[in-house]
Amino acid sequence: MDHLMPEKPLGVALIGTGFMGKCHAMAWNNVATVYGGARPRLEIVCDASDAAAHSAADAFGFARATTDWRAAVAASAVDVVSITTPNGFHREMAEAALEAGKHVWLEKPMALTLEDATHMAEVARSHPGAVTLLGYNYLRSPAFKAAEAMVRSGQIGEVLAFRGVYDEDYSADPSLPWSWRMTHEGGGLGALGDLGCHLVSQMIALMGPVDELTAMTQIAVPTRPSDSGPKAVENEDSAMALIRFASGAQGSFATSRVARGRKCRLQWEIHGSDGTLVFDQERMNELWVHRVGDAGFTRHLTGPEQPEFAAFCPAPGHNFGFNEQKVVEARDLCSAIAGATNVGPDFELGLTIERIIHAMASSHGRPVKLGK
Amino acid sequence: MDHLMPEKPLGVALIGTGFMGKCHAMAWNNVATVYGGARPRLEIVCDASDAAAHSAADAFGFARATTDWRAAVAASAVDVVSITTPNGFHREMAEAALEAGKHVWLEKPMALTLEDATHMAEVARSHPGAVTLLGYNYLRSPAFKAAEAMVRSGQIGEVLAFRGVYDEDYSADPSLPWSWRMTHEGGGLGALGDLGCHLVSQMIALMGPVDELTAMTQIAVPTRPSDSGPKAVENEDSAMALIRFASGAQGSFATSRVARGRKCRLQWEIHGSDGTLVFDQERMNELWVHRVGDAGFTRHLTGPEQPEFAAFCPAPGHNFGFNEQKVVEARDLCSAIAGATNVGPDFELGLTIERIIHAMASSHGRPVKLGK
Amino acid sequence: MDHLMPEKPLGVALIGTGFMGKCHAMAWNNVATVYGGARPRLEIVCDASDAAAHSAADAFGFARATTDWRAAVAASAVDVVSITTPNGFHREMAEAALEAGKHVWLEKPMALTLEDATHMAEVARSHPGAVTLLGYNYLRSPAFKAAEAMVRSGQIGEVLAFRGVYDEDYSADPSLPWSWRMTHEGGGLGALGDLGCHLVSQMIALMGPVDELTAMTQIAVPTRPSDSGPKAVENEDSAMALIRFASGAQGSFATSRVARGRKCRLQWEIHGSDGTLVFDQERMNELWVHRVGDAGFTRHLTGPEQPEFAAFCPAPGHNFGFNEQKVVEARDLCSAIAGATNVGPDFELGLTIERIIHAMASSHGRPVKLGK
Amino acid sequence: MDHLMPEKPLGVALIGTGFMGKCHAMAWNNVATVYGGARPRLEIVCDASDAAAHSAADAFGFARATTDWRAAVAASAVDVVSITTPNGFHREMAEAALEAGKHVWLEKPMALTLEDATHMAEVARSHPGAVTLLGYNYLRSPAFKAAEAMVRSGQIGEVLAFRGVYDEDYSADPSLPWSWRMTHEGGGLGALGDLGCHLVSQMIALMGPVDELTAMTQIAVPTRPSDSGPKAVENEDSAMALIRFASGAQGSFATSRVARGRKCRLQWEIHGSDGTLVFDQERMNELWVHRVGDAGFTRHLTGPEQPEFAAFCPAPGHNFGFNEQKVVEARDLCSAIAGATNVGPDFELGLTIERIIHAMASSHGRPVKLGK
Repeated sequence: MDHLMPEKPLGVALIGTGFMGKCHAMAWNNVATVYGGARPRLEIVCDASDAAAHSAADAFGFARATTDWRAAVAASAVDVVSITTPNGFHREMAEAALEAGKHVWLEKPMALTLEDATHMAEVARSHPGAVTLLGYNYLRSPAFKAAEAMVRSGQIGEVLAFRGVYDEDYSADPSLPWSWRMTHEGGGLGALGDLGCHLVSQMIALMGPVDELTAMTQIAVPTRPSDSGPKAVENEDSAMALIRFASGAQGSFATSRVARGRKCRLQWEIHGSDGTLVFDQERMNELWVHRVGDAGFTRHLTGPEQPEFAAFCPAPGHNFGFNEQKVVEARDLCSAIAGATNVGPDFELGLTIERIIHAMASSHGRPVKLGK
Repeated sequence: MDHLMPEKPLGVALIGTGFMGKCHAMAWNNVATVYGGARPRLEIVCDASDAAAHSAADAFGFARATTDWRAAVAASAVDVVSITTPNGFHREMAEAALEAGKHVWLEKPMALTLEDATHMAEVARSHPGAVTLLGYNYLRSPAFKAAEAMVRSGQIGEVLAFRGVYDEDYSADPSLPWSWRMTHEGGGLGALGDLGCHLVSQMIALMGPVDELTAMTQIAVPTRPSDSGPKAVENEDSAMALIRFASGAQGSFATSRVARGRKCRLQWEIHGSDGTLVFDQERMNELWVHRVGDAGFTRHLTGPEQPEFAAFCPAPGHNFGFNEQKVVEARDLCSAIAGATNVGPDFELGLTIERIIHAMASSHGRPVKLGK
Repeated sequence: MDHLMPEKPLGVALIGTGFMGKCHAMAWNNVATVYGGARPRLEIVCDASDAAAHSAADAFGFARATTDWRAAVAASAVDVVSITTPNGFHREMAEAALEAGKHVWLEKPMALTLEDATHMAEVARSHPGAVTLLGYNYLRSPAFKAAEAMVRSGQIGEVLAFRGVYDEDYSADPSLPWSWRMTHEGGGLGALGDLGCHLVSQMIALMGPVDELTAMTQIAVPTRPSDSGPKAVENEDSAMALIRFASGAQGSFATSRVARGRKCRLQWEIHGSDGTLVFDQERMNELWVHRVGDAGFTRHLTGPEQPEFAAFCPAPGHNFGFNEQKVVEARDLCSAIAGATNVGPDFELGLTIERIIHAMASSHGRPVKLGK
Repeated sequence: MDHLMPEKPLGVALIGTGFMGKCHAMAWNNVATVYGGARPRLEIVCDASDAAAHSAADAFGFARATTDWRAAVAASAVDVVSITTPNGFHREMAEAALEAGKHVWLEKPMALTLEDATHMAEVARSHPGAVTLLGYNYLRSPAFKAAEAMVRSGQIGEVLAFRGVYDEDYSADPSLPWSWRMTHEGGGLGALGDLGCHLVSQMIALMGPVDELTAMTQIAVPTRPSDSGPKAVENEDSAMALIRFASGAQGSFATSRVARGRKCRLQWEIHGSDGTLVFDQERMNELWVHRVGDAGFTRHLTGPEQPEFAAFCPAPGHNFGFNEQKVVEARDLCSAIAGATNVGPDFELGLTIERIIHAMASSHGRPVKLGK
């Protein structure tokens, strides 16, 4: 078995009850259903709205509700804190949880600024007993895991090149109102922070460290309507980069939040000396594989030969879903808490991801060297 | 809102802890997480193996474990019974549950024989206060619901034709040992009972009642190895049929358990006077639509415009999964128990499905008239 | 080499200068360019319109133009006659050509009625020195040839089942005016004659002889506008059939000329004990193959490993086109004239195809036995 | 009509009888068959091998054969010269033809070196009565033309971004012997010259002029076997670039000759403010289109609504082929000779393409400014 499950129930606090809060709640409800081990105790759920907190407690099965996240983080019954609040709260909450001796499951991106992320990694380093895990859920899908395993075991030979994009169109409509999320101070990076970081998380898992990159960014819709008239969008709608990996391989990278018709187009291909892999998250249950001697590309449907899939369903072709990625993530978190050491990305690796996307944002077409 | 959720918690018993038992358990754990309403009480789980029952109770979050399904069914704290045992047990368990005044959630196919299904429908009819729901999970997916809504609202005009297949390859390997599932007495129908009934469930939801059909069946692997030498396979490896619907539309139908490379190929298309729909469960998050004036077929990715999807995720293109169909099914069951009347398939409709697949099995190339 | 090319130039007459007339002309211009051998002499082109005939002679490179098809057929410089006129002329022209000692390349379907086709086959039989070839061009594509070779060489094991459709939407619009093509007398069969015969030509090439079939037909648009008001459509808009092959394999078959959005959906799959093949003419350069042990279906792009492709292009993935099928057909005709015996379908096989589609048209849901 | 056809026959010389020579020959044989106008006179074909020249004359329908390309170019009966020889001969032959007062149809890439291309453009400029056309055949496909028209007519709004690749795997096998084509002197550029120039030709047709680019190249297989032991590969196996267009749009670009499993993967997408287009030459008969308000991406199959397609076939979905692109190219050449001014790429535009690929080859990760 490639994971451990805790023998004693973990006490859970959940902060934030929106899209990702519900997603964490589903995962906490089913991680033991799927993987066994002690079922977690859902202790406390927190939301800025009292009504939302209580409603979530009832619906999600948490014992208590609160609007005081500090109390939730501090509660003695709590072992692990799920943080699913807007990015601007990440640093404060995560550091408080670590300092209270809790494990932390934090949604991405890690923080608004590179400075914040750097500090968070320091705090994590100073609490070596605490597990940190970032919510890069696309790392957990069966097809991605299969790709990772194929690359690592040399099934496509020496890796030569990566080509990756992550496009959505949630900001494509120019009549979409201006929001604080479109400012550096309120939202941090734009497409790179929302989408690009996911692609980076997969890219470095598959390709290893980045040595140097050159990037450019674009603001496709420079101003957006607000109650006080048009206001400027500060962060990027899209970005493109060339990558040199430490291995000597090369890569291209692009992300956009204004790509009409794209919904979850996290798509990449890897060229190896002996084969090629192709993946698209919009068809997350398929990995396309060509290896030397094959007559073409073969569609590998996810199935029980992948451990991530098998725990949910013994029948191949019976699609794995987006939310189930989060159950695998919860399993990985539990496994790390139970002592496994093969789990990530923790805050250290998260900081590496932040460095890469911030380097892209500040390259302006000039090469940027990445440190170790 | 198109569904109701119970205000008081439902007490749940689960019989069977295999593939579908776990699937029901995941659904019971998350139906309220996703849809709100009172969270169900997971009262008792039953398996023929005491160890399996206790292990499932721990993992799935049930209060008690038992090997005595009659006790589970009779327990006063239990309002609804999930039955996920082999088909040969369906009739006895479902009837006992109904007679104990419980609601019943029963996996498909309804029963081994048409006689059993007929009797079960009679028992259900005599307990009008009990809700029955059959586990035709593919009816619950967002893309199927969207297709159903498009057909019913006339978006493809008058419906002319249906072409459907459901193929897998789980029996394709001729070295697969003989099993009691391959006999009429032990397994009932073959591919028609395992797979074909799912396709029928979708076909009649989309096309309305069947008036007449002509079918033929095939046993591709006539004998299979057993400890006592080769033994005969009795039930069909595949079947094909022509259908006349009461509406005047026509259809073709095929199913196989020996279709090499097919994993969950539940695939159909509908031709209407004003458009065409195409679906394949192996890509369950896509519905392909062509309507008059369109330049081609358009890939509709599932997304939050479909209520089944929206409850799980606000982001389009973030794939819905096989197991989540079962959460929708649990919601529908809860909704029916709370008084909704638009839910099915109940045992009455289940009997209609059984009549159709048994008519296919006994047609031998001659037309068979279906009663109303 | 699997074909012969004539050493002396063949004298060619072409009757009909529409869609298929031009297609034959392109083929006659390039058959030697592609395959070598003596370039044919383009002697005479015939059209009912004198202007069209002369214009075609200039554009297509024929030496002479005429409106008198009997003169064209009788011309001493002519060795082979391409007949691309409306179906109602096929019998008279083909028989005249045969009786004049010419080889005949005839577009499908062979004739309006089964009686005509039967007589034509008799005339062909009585002129054993004349080569007859029917324009079933889809038999000539590299992907189809590859499929045929895989089936015949046992690469998918014992063949169990065929599922085929051929759908277009050229008659889907109910405002399309009534025409004589929609009558039995003027047009013969409907979708079966236009489309279904192509699917039959592939089906029997892949599956061998048909033993018995049951079919039903449908007229989706019963009347159509004409200058004298709505007039009845007599021939079928669509048909569906179940097939029993002499080999014991089973098949399903469907064709429609009213399938919205379908343009050249000649699509089939074959299930074998050791593999599955899937093809769709709308993507005519792809054959999808799964064989025992494969991880999924593999997309085989056409390429120079197929002799039909190699003669046109040495580079794989550089798509073969519809019209090039016709050049391969011209090659096969030349090869047969030069003495090759492995070419078809001749009028004998054409008659078999006619028998099958006429049996479908007259089945009305009852089994029809096909003779040898 | 968007093209002109000559009223008098053009006299044609063809130099080179390999892959592209045959392709030109097919085009010359059918350009008038398809488009009308005076049929060209196929005067003389030239090959270094006398046997090949004579064999080609017979097969392709040329009146004479020669091994003396200067004689072919000088022949008074010749109006236009097709040059399909290895790249190292392009400059000498093209300039000789121009100086003999002939029109020139030249295969790509234009020349081995930027200096040669520059000189060729000068010679062309000094012979303004001669038409030059480069064989960028992928510009001629119906789907590409449709994309170009959609972009130019504003159907996807303001163009924001381009993402393009052209990958094949003809050099992926490391045991492929060393050849002079892999040297700067013998072969010029590597993947950029073979493949990348095609992608550039489409990119600038769709996106307009390039202002600046940054690129990097890679030699995946540094040495290859030769009779005298391993020898160094000098030109690039792959390249990647970031592009700034003069319009302000941005682009990413990649090409590889070592991308396992890719056969003709000339694939791009364009993001506009109001829509997205996606194309892949391996499925050259499909253009995928999303526009504001669409429910997803729609597959546009090529059909007679595209003039390039209509001339070949009136039936949609009946695939256009690779070689037919060359017939369109021949038509464009004829049209330019007849006086049309909307045709290209001529040597001037060809030089622009050369400048771009050479800038990519020499960027080494630093920004390179392109002149006008």
